[in-house]
Amino acid sequence: MSEIRYDIVTGKIAVISTERGKRPHDFKKADVIKNSGVCPFCPGNEPMTPPTLVEFRGEDGMWTLRGFNNKFAAFKKDADAAKHGSELYRADDGYGVAEIIVESQYHDMTLGQMDSEGIENIMKALILRYRDIVKDEKIKYVQMFKNFGANGGASLEHGHWQIMGVSFVPEVLERELKGVERHEAETGRCPYCHIIDEEMKENARIVAENDRFIVICPYASQFAYESWILPKKHAKAFNEMDDDDIRSLSSLLKSLVKKYEDLFDNPPYNIVIHTVPHHDRRDFHWHVEILPRLTTFAGFELATGAYINPTPPEEAASILRLD
Amino acid sequence: MSEIRYDIVTGKIAVISTERGKRPHDFKKADVIKNSGVCPFCPGNEPMTPPTLVEFRGEDGMWTLRGFNNKFAAFKKDADAAKHGSELYRADDGYGVAEIIVESQYHDMTLGQMDSEGIENIMKALILRYRDIVKDEKIKYVQMFKNFGANGGASLEHGHWQIMGVSFVPEVLERELKGVERHEAETGRCPYCHIIDEEMKENARIVAENDRFIVICPYASQFAYESWILPKKHAKAFNEMDDDDIRSLSSLLKSLVKKYEDLFDNPPYNIVIHTVPHHDRRDFHWHVEILPRLTTFAGFELATGAYINPTPPEEAASILRLD
Repeated sequence: MSEIRYDIVTGKIAVISTERGKRPHDFKKADVIKNSGVCPFCPGNEPMTPPTLVEFRGEDGMWTLRGFNNKFAAFKKDADAAKHGSELYRADDGYGVAEIIVESQYHDMTLGQMDSEGIENIMKALILRYRDIVKDEKIKYVQMFKNFGANGGASLEHGHWQIMGVSFVPEVLERELKGVERHEAETGRCPYCHIIDEEMKENARIVAENDRFIVICPYASQFAYESWILPKKHAKAFNEMDDDDIRSLSSLLKSLVKKYEDLFDNPPYNIVIHTVPHHDRRDFHWHVEILPRLTTFAGFELATGAYINPTPPEEAASILRLD
Repeated sequence: MSEIRYDIVTGKIAVISTERGKRPHDFKKADVIKNSGVCPFCPGNEPMTPPTLVEFRGEDGMWTLRGFNNKFAAFKKDADAAKHGSELYRADDGYGVAEIIVESQYHDMTLGQMDSEGIENIMKALILRYRDIVKDEKIKYVQMFKNFGANGGASLEHGHWQIMGVSFVPEVLERELKGVERHEAETGRCPYCHIIDEEMKENARIVAENDRFIVICPYASQFAYESWILPKKHAKAFNEMDDDDIRSLSSLLKSLVKKYEDLFDNPPYNIVIHTVPHHDRRDFHWHVEILPRLTTFAGFELATGAYINPTPPEEAASILRLD
């Protein structure tokens, strides 16, 4: 029998349906990005990409991480953020920024293969770019994310993250912000703090934890083997992490991604960071979502907005659990 | 420069970004469903599937279309529609129905290869099953859809449609219903009727039309080459089509799907029908959405709910146009 679960913050529906009884090996499938020719993200090919915006260097003087504008940007500053369209149809210019962070100098290195320090540098680079981007008050929200694998929407093999600063607060964030507001009004508590307490009590969906962060498979997981990393202490903004936070997060993220890579043989996935919109005064509890792309959205999901998930989060957590 | 477009009914955002300048041939990619062994949907293998719920027969007495319960159902009637969960987490049983309509007796025949009469029979079968399913007042909404291709989420090659009757009104429908309500309150007109008038005036996004239906690429298309088929005359419910409506719709749908098949070499797609929830008294304008799966949702789409579409709907319409 399947179960319809409601996300406490957003109200989004996940249908937990185990009819097909999928275990990790059932999800393994070919996921190959076919890049031919020279990789623009490899050392030596910097002229193929826009100028450096952020970089870290190793002892040998070579860069170990490098950030720059996305050459194929969906959002640009040459737009004037003007509104146009007809009486019926409304449109704005695609004002904003789109940047790339190349994770390392190694073409084939996966996130799970990197050392924890390498991941710390990614987090630091994201924060540096974030702080610079939000100086522009026309940027209402900055989405930081990673696509991995062809079915994760990555078009280049070489490991990288993306940063998109946009002139609007996207609806998924707006729903989470409203959900926080509502739950706080009703119960006096942040729903994410409430979730963390409940998960620590139930201990049915915890994947890992350390002093500062907890990893859970969320109760209403829309994706099979979805997991969230949340700071245990209430905090609105990703970009306000201190060095210890960054160290704690990076060490968990490394182990978690390695576990996915081992279990599912380098599956496609997305990692997305939800943080409070910079100029928004509402409360929030920032978090990271790891969304494995093991199943394909089909007509039902696209038509209804409800997601059928073949793996109960309780089972996913027990399989993902880090020891 | 890219453009942020807002769907007039739902407010959903599409970012029309032509940076990568994709034309039909750029989207072609391998999309293979790997079925091995016997096809349960082929004639002679009926014992592999649940009992027949609807069928049409040809002159030779063989079935030409056949419907039955989905063996791997996400929704079933043995659930008791009970609510459960904790104070924090809410869940319902997955009460409902999940059915399959096998389009034809031919394993490899695509929708675009069928004759218009075959498609009429699919529409008639969907309506017959719909009318039966909604007799159960616990079913609040019936989603009818077709998945085609591996990247369309189909798990079997043999052409089929799905019907899922669920105990809730899904959020996408709820947004469309609310959008209709709001636009009618503000302007006195159904927004879909308004869209049809505007499109006929502008003539920039029309793909085809006949006496009863119009095909457009919607102004805020979230998918590259997305198209909608709308009845020209305001009508709330798919299931209230008369024989002439069915004939008009089927002939357009056949030509449209054939055009996609030819242009993109049998691309993966979803076809979804949005109709008024049966026991809902609100107004609606039913329609069919054809969602080609030419690009992959990536981190940005999943994190924000805003979709980046590389093909302006005006260009899509000019390429899809049926003569």
